[in-house]
Amino acid sequence: MQTARGVRDIPPEEKILKNQVVDTLKEVFKLYGFPPLETPTIERLETLSAKGGAGEESDALKETFKFQDQGKRKLALRFDLTVPLARFVTMNPNLKMPFKRYEMGSVFRDGPIKLGRTREFWQCDIDTVGTNSMLADAEVIAVISEGFNRLGLDVVIKVNNRKILTGILEQAGIKEKENAIIAIDKLDKIGKEGVCKELNERGYNKKQISAVFDIIDGKVTLTGLKTKVKNELGIQGMTELGELMNYLKRMKVQVKFDVSLARGLAYYTGTVFEVFLKKGEVTSSLAGGGRYDDMVGNFMGGGRVIPAVGGSFGIVPIMAALKKTVQRMSTKVFVLPINATEESLDVVQQLRTAGIPTSFALGKKGVSKNLEYANYLGIPFVIIIGENELQKKKVLFRDMITGTEQLLSLKDVVKKLRA
Amino acid sequence: MQTARGVRDIPPEEKILKNQVVDTLKEVFKLYGFPPLETPTIERLETLSAKGGAGEESDALKETFKFQDQGKRKLALRFDLTVPLARFVTMNPNLKMPFKRYEMGSVFRDGPIKLGRTREFWQCDIDTVGTNSMLADAEVIAVISEGFNRLGLDVVIKVNNRKILTGILEQAGIKEKENAIIAIDKLDKIGKEGVCKELNERGYNKKQISAVFDIIDGKVTLTGLKTKVKNELGIQGMTELGELMNYLKRMKVQVKFDVSLARGLAYYTGTVFEVFLKKGEVTSSLAGGGRYDDMVGNFMGGGRVIPAVGGSFGIVPIMAALKKTVQRMSTKVFVLPINATEESLDVVQQLRTAGIPTSFALGKKGVSKNLEYANYLGIPFVIIIGENELQKKKVLFRDMITGTEQLLSLKDVVKKLRA
Repeated sequence: MQTARGVRDIPPEEKILKNQVVDTLKEVFKLYGFPPLETPTIERLETLSAKGGAGEESDALKETFKFQDQGKRKLALRFDLTVPLARFVTMNPNLKMPFKRYEMGSVFRDGPIKLGRTREFWQCDIDTVGTNSMLADAEVIAVISEGFNRLGLDVVIKVNNRKILTGILEQAGIKEKENAIIAIDKLDKIGKEGVCKELNERGYNKKQISAVFDIIDGKVTLTGLKTKVKNELGIQGMTELGELMNYLKRMKVQVKFDVSLARGLAYYTGTVFEVFLKKGEVTSSLAGGGRYDDMVGNFMGGGRVIPAVGGSFGIVPIMAALKKTVQRMSTKVFVLPINATEESLDVVQQLRTAGIPTSFALGKKGVSKNLEYANYLGIPFVIIIGENELQKKKVLFRDMITGTEQLLSLKDVVKKLRA
Repeated sequence: MQTARGVRDIPPEEKILKNQVVDTLKEVFKLYGFPPLETPTIERLETLSAKGGAGEESDALKETFKFQDQGKRKLALRFDLTVPLARFVTMNPNLKMPFKRYEMGSVFRDGPIKLGRTREFWQCDIDTVGTNSMLADAEVIAVISEGFNRLGLDVVIKVNNRKILTGILEQAGIKEKENAIIAIDKLDKIGKEGVCKELNERGYNKKQISAVFDIIDGKVTLTGLKTKVKNELGIQGMTELGELMNYLKRMKVQVKFDVSLARGLAYYTGTVFEVFLKKGEVTSSLAGGGRYDDMVGNFMGGGRVIPAVGGSFGIVPIMAALKKTVQRMSTKVFVLPINATEESLDVVQQLRTAGIPTSFALGKKGVSKNLEYANYLGIPFVIIIGENELQKKKVLFRDMITGTEQLLSLKDVVKKLRA
């Protein structure tokens, strides 16, 4: 009896952490006025293959789990939460714009199995649809920033604007930009030499490559770029980014401009951002996003333009970054009666009424077996109730870490457990 | 562009309510020492069709969405959370018993579409695996009771024990019990006459039917039954139920014995319970569950016996019962600048820092359009910031319900919004 290939269970000790992450983020979304939306796990295959979404030829669609219902209708499991959002907006023409929402849930990719990559994984997205104002971009990035603040993770948020990079490439005489962007995006990882080599391998010539690095070499600031970028699209990108930076400063959100940041997804059209841990073992990005002004409109068809901006938290890398700091079990105390089952139920319910997460001995095991069980569950305290305790109207309170025991009134136990 | 047949979106105003229900229940589960578990949406088809689970011939399996991965492995979408629990327990032989957990998430049935029934719906289950102690049954029912307390729903929890009903049927000379149980389970809905008619139609003879009603007619109490039930299994059921009732009384949980209560699922072996609203439009059950001592062991094979007891909250009927009492939007205030975009960002972030869910004008719409937007979102207050307000270092605070406006300091606004 096994799980399906490429998926996994999230056992309690891990799911508690996941819930903490998710609840923290939900609180931030609420504070920033992003209400929740829940779309189904199942979508029509035609929705997921619509142009503007993944498109018929995309990798995501190739890796989509496809099936039929009893009526032979073609269905599929969603591969992200953005296409369902576009579908929701399309189906609800009376929505007033801007439409803000967050959604979190499982998405599915029937792809190759690698370390840390599963065929079913959670996404956690916030998006604002229907405005091209940089205020919306600033707000999304502010949510991301506040999310990591509250999670207690020290991160750097790198931002860029796709138009700047595209403009620079145009200025350097490069027509086929997608491949160049993929290479330049690796600047932080593989350095200038690495990028030059890759650009060369991807068929760009020396003149083009040196023209690019004339502009983006060294420590590139937005002010510095202004003297170098002459291309119209590039200038527009810098204006947008300047406006965004201004709003973020006002909102007290720290970000770092990175001219090489592109993000893989082809559908980004303006602002892009990506979040990394400042220090620590997790080097992959913890969150990312950007502006995608074409996708929703393309999806709806009819020449509609529906600008949008969004961000996505990577729950798995965030959990990896937090892993060591969280408690295994939320239960605070385990009640263990010795020939006092019914009386112990009074104690159990009083503890719960006082708001203290409590478990108790359900079986007929002996004291040592039950202590072993409480220890295995990682419950930090045990209350033992036997004849002696009942007579004295007290309980024996055992600290499972130090092993010390005290005879206490229940009131004092509650005080201790609340402290 | 449409949703797949039989599934639906949960729009923000509904999802906010769902989150409130779910968060309330999570809090109770934590208090009662049930940690969370998350199993995948996708399972192997062989797992879902294993004997002891749904079994190859069950309705649930017939209605299972089936598909394959790229490696032609047979997969399926889970139709409940109990089979995945059994699979999890089987895959983790080192789990110490009893194993308590809750799980909530989407399950899927490719069945006929009826009102209030969708092909993808949430289940919310708590279960205790690995003990036959009635303490576990009592704890599960206590969780259910506390859940409805906290949701503010006035419910009756009906309890019974399958062994009692089975024993009574045996005593009445009935061999084929499943059909009889299905009919008797309707006693509350269709009355004695209706049940007699149905039993007759299902092929039970007059003598059998009157023998049953000799025992269960009128207001049946557990004490009253003791003089009538002679069958060994029935007596065992009454002993178990007596023990359960005793524990529940001690835990201050009110329940009502109902000898006709059976619950549809064939796999229940002892305790069964079902929760109904005392008054109100929602007449379907809001929660239910019971003891299933055979299923997990059968599932594991090898003649293992793994007793288990669990309960399930019906999120959809609970939301229907609560519907009218909940707010549409959690956002408390909408900030609307007039030529004061940047200054308004200070106000927005200060409100959020003070813990007040805040949205603001993202586009370049005029004042009346923005007020309309805030009203449409159901946000109860709007803060207007223009030249006048900036000069006076105050904001214009508008109550969207009464339409009244006051010039206030931000500090006073925070006080008001927190009140």
